[in-house]
Amino acid sequence: MTSPAQWYETHRELLDQAVRATQARDYWSAYPESPSKSVYGEDAAPAGERAFTALLGKPFPIEVPGATGTVSTERSPYGIELGLSYPKADPLALVAAARAATPAWRAAGPQGRAGVAAEIIKRINARSFEMAHAVQHTTGQAFVMAFQAGGTHAQDRALEAVAYALAASTRMPATAEWTKPQRGGDPLRLSKTSTVVGRGVGLVIGCTTFPTWNSYPGLFASLVTGNPVIVKPHPGAILPLAITVQICREVLAESGLNPDLVTLAVEERGDGIAATLATHPDVRIVDFTGSSDFGNWLEANARQAVVYTEKSGLNTVLVDSTDDYKGMLRNLSFSLSLYSGQMCTTPQNILVPRSGIETDAGHRSPEEFGADLAAAIDKLLGDPKRAAGTLGAIVNDGVLARLTEAGTLPDVIRASAEVADEQYPGATIRTPVLARLDAADEKTYTRECFGPVSFVITTDSTEHSLRIFTETVRAHGALTASVYSISPGVLASAREAALDAGVHLSENLTGGVFVNQTAAFGDLHGTGANPAATASLTDDYFVTGRFFTLQSRHHVPATEEV
Amino acid sequence: MTSPAQWYETHRELLDQAVRATQARDYWSAYPESPSKSVYGEDAAPAGERAFTALLGKPFPIEVPGATGTVSTERSPYGIELGLSYPKADPLALVAAARAATPAWRAAGPQGRAGVAAEIIKRINARSFEMAHAVQHTTGQAFVMAFQAGGTHAQDRALEAVAYALAASTRMPATAEWTKPQRGGDPLRLSKTSTVVGRGVGLVIGCTTFPTWNSYPGLFASLVTGNPVIVKPHPGAILPLAITVQICREVLAESGLNPDLVTLAVEERGDGIAATLATHPDVRIVDFTGSSDFGNWLEANARQAVVYTEKSGLNTVLVDSTDDYKGMLRNLSFSLSLYSGQMCTTPQNILVPRSGIETDAGHRSPEEFGADLAAAIDKLLGDPKRAAGTLGAIVNDGVLARLTEAGTLPDVIRASAEVADEQYPGATIRTPVLARLDAADEKTYTRECFGPVSFVITTDSTEHSLRIFTETVRAHGALTASVYSISPGVLASAREAALDAGVHLSENLTGGVFVNQTAAFGDLHGTGANPAATASLTDDYFVTGRFFTLQSRHHVPATEEV
Repeated sequence: MTSPAQWYETHRELLDQAVRATQARDYWSAYPESPSKSVYGEDAAPAGERAFTALLGKPFPIEVPGATGTVSTERSPYGIELGLSYPKADPLALVAAARAATPAWRAAGPQGRAGVAAEIIKRINARSFEMAHAVQHTTGQAFVMAFQAGGTHAQDRALEAVAYALAASTRMPATAEWTKPQRGGDPLRLSKTSTVVGRGVGLVIGCTTFPTWNSYPGLFASLVTGNPVIVKPHPGAILPLAITVQICREVLAESGLNPDLVTLAVEERGDGIAATLATHPDVRIVDFTGSSDFGNWLEANARQAVVYTEKSGLNTVLVDSTDDYKGMLRNLSFSLSLYSGQMCTTPQNILVPRSGIETDAGHRSPEEFGADLAAAIDKLLGDPKRAAGTLGAIVNDGVLARLTEAGTLPDVIRASAEVADEQYPGATIRTPVLARLDAADEKTYTRECFGPVSFVITTDSTEHSLRIFTETVRAHGALTASVYSISPGVLASAREAALDAGVHLSENLTGGVFVNQTAAFGDLHGTGANPAATASLTDDYFVTGRFFTLQSRHHVPATEEV
Repeated sequence: MTSPAQWYETHRELLDQAVRATQARDYWSAYPESPSKSVYGEDAAPAGERAFTALLGKPFPIEVPGATGTVSTERSPYGIELGLSYPKADPLALVAAARAATPAWRAAGPQGRAGVAAEIIKRINARSFEMAHAVQHTTGQAFVMAFQAGGTHAQDRALEAVAYALAASTRMPATAEWTKPQRGGDPLRLSKTSTVVGRGVGLVIGCTTFPTWNSYPGLFASLVTGNPVIVKPHPGAILPLAITVQICREVLAESGLNPDLVTLAVEERGDGIAATLATHPDVRIVDFTGSSDFGNWLEANARQAVVYTEKSGLNTVLVDSTDDYKGMLRNLSFSLSLYSGQMCTTPQNILVPRSGIETDAGHRSPEEFGADLAAAIDKLLGDPKRAAGTLGAIVNDGVLARLTEAGTLPDVIRASAEVADEQYPGATIRTPVLARLDAADEKTYTRECFGPVSFVITTDSTEHSLRIFTETVRAHGALTASVYSISPGVLASAREAALDAGVHLSENLTGGVFVNQTAAFGDLHGTGANPAATASLTDDYFVTGRFFTLQSRHHVPATEEV
């Protein structure tokens, strides 16, 4: 057995570094993103694949308190047979088990809990190749992306949440001496103690496209602040979170703690246990990533809980001018294509003034810009192997349906096409659709069209673009926004517009940084300031609602006096 | 004109000290609590009284955007004629004015806003004597208490909120350079900017007993984090907040800012503008102190806002044993008598085991303890002048009615009596009622009886007391709890019970510290962990929901490179 305090000592340097990284905001990562042999060792890749393959066609080995029967709901977007099944959860049993496990977790203290969390993430990192296969075959992410976004980047986001939770829950000193001078008498002296108490049972509701990246911040923030957590994966992407919960339970048990501090809640599609759990009186924290419909429902109905949601929105690009037209097109085409636009951060609405844009390659009309962007996508995806590696697979039929529908728009600039994958002939891979709209077509572009569909929207002017940007994002939300302009005045206006709209802004990205990617410890993800999300990943607000600080105080007795 | 940045420079040392005090949690106060000439000067007291008297019988001089007509609703619990009137507010006009004033406030930045706030508090402090009269003649607090709780202690709580808001909103650096190494190439380099953006219009709903102390934390936390604030006083206690808003507007105007960043919302009794304002889509922050009924209504209905409430509860004392019986009785009798029990922190339920308690003065049965406590109250209040100074006046007829009702309980240990005030013959002053109950009388003691009414409740044992304590506080809330015991085991159990109940605990207070008093920078007030409140005054959670951090990022151009 290794106690929480011992885990803290083991990982103390890493945790200190992580806390410093949250303050410095320079690039920092604890988990190498390169799946290369030089980093993870000669056997890591094949061992991970073997571990993944060994899981297929079997009940997943995990204990779920009160479970009855099994459930099997996943299918691989790459067409392979998964055959995985999981114990079917009983929501009430999970909540009861979580509550029963809580007191010892409270007693472990912030440092002990952070130590346990760091050990959990370390073991998740050690299984990154296995996890990459699990993520690939549930979400449709291509392997390298699955390794990074589903593996190491998610681990970075997890550690970031641990760091914020640890820092926030230890900012009030655990003990303090309070001495108030009294006129003509001895001072009043009190000894005061502060104890961090979790809010209650946490519920993390995962999504189908980023089951780990989007779930880890809430999971680890709740854990470190003293709460048990029930993890409810999307029926389409269970395995990555099942592995995660398995590791959590293993480390908790080895730490002499009740493993039911983290449990897995798997259901048949349509059982609705997320709603049952989210409105249970003992569930006091809900983290959700997914549709605006259910996110809004949670915000309205999970009244006994603090609710952190990340929903959908209208990610917007303002194109005004550029001194690197090729770089802009290259950057945009990659952003639109990566994981087939199935990122909550993929740009959808690209606003271009009717009079066209000035570039280092000359003036371009909106029509010319649209054609150039289509050509850049063609070029990026020209080689089928590279195309498959960039696009990944279409995660489900809903995305496919939207793609087909978008293909019927009157002014399609670039039609979607099928791409074959050598390794997985059964994979559903499609290139993006690009369609032209006018500013008046707001019925079309003010709905989120999740998937590889983007619109080049002609506006009256850059000022008009800015106005549309602010109004649509204020009303419908956005997780990302970007602007291309060589005019300091336009950039300043875009910054103000982004502050008004409540969205983070990327300016003139033409190189190896993409608007749809955010880095732990450097970039906030989401803002809370527009309807797309209620909080950022990760900042103080994201963690401070998960715990209370309770104080006790007593006179300092004579024997304790200095 | 003095710019916000200049105010920051003026008050920087104070603000730095205040931030350090939030971290150290030792005694610290910026505003001397003694109303003595040696501190505030020879003329401060008479000048403050003159300033107060000059306000009486007139419309209060304050500009309220869109106001129509005047309102006069206050009456002094000390019986003097106030004759004050205020412009009657139009809620929609206040919200519109607040929104219009916001952009320049956002641009002032956290430091500038904290500088303006510090100047405001400085000027409030300079008017502490005037404020003391205003608080005395609206709340019924005796003068010295009004000077402290309504004046300097409220100012300390204000500065504490400023310090927390400033620290939390500057923890993310305003600018950061981000450099990510690339294998075989130049690193990726981004320059990142973080901007604090307020959540939206803040609404502060004041209470009748502590109009300033309970309103300042929300007011100043919202202001410093970039929000305009509408201050809605209780119809019975407008003047202290009218003076406050007047000072806010004066400093804002002198800072070149729109004074409508802080406005006063006065209504006729029953107009219900608090509900109108609290549910307005642009009102995004609500701070409320008052009844559980309206607090719960706000939590359920002000869905577009973050809602911070401080409501009512069952403040509880566990009596098990003591080695300072006299000190315990003296301390308890003062806690029950101070401001006639009209503090949200006054103990109501005093739990005593049926077998009695061991003390340094011998064993005491519950009956003997009750009689001794009644005698201690008699002794404390024996001298009418001292009694008036401790009790203050009864704030309104509701309290008087509860006092009368409590007097009809079957087992009254100590009946209430009238006390005459030399200076104010019209004052309504009453001594506390103490009644004996059994643990089975939960219908009586699980309701809050706000005012000078407390119950000595006989339980089966100290374990039973602990159970009643935890169960009643979990269900009905509490702002304070205290325990008297010489047994380390009982103290440890009481600490655990307080953590389970979610309430702060005072242990064995027998000297000059009282359970119903909390000090800024040392004690949290309320916890959020039980139904009596949703947050503590003041910690990070209380401030982090009031703002968003929005980022922008761009490549570092060649010319900016080091």
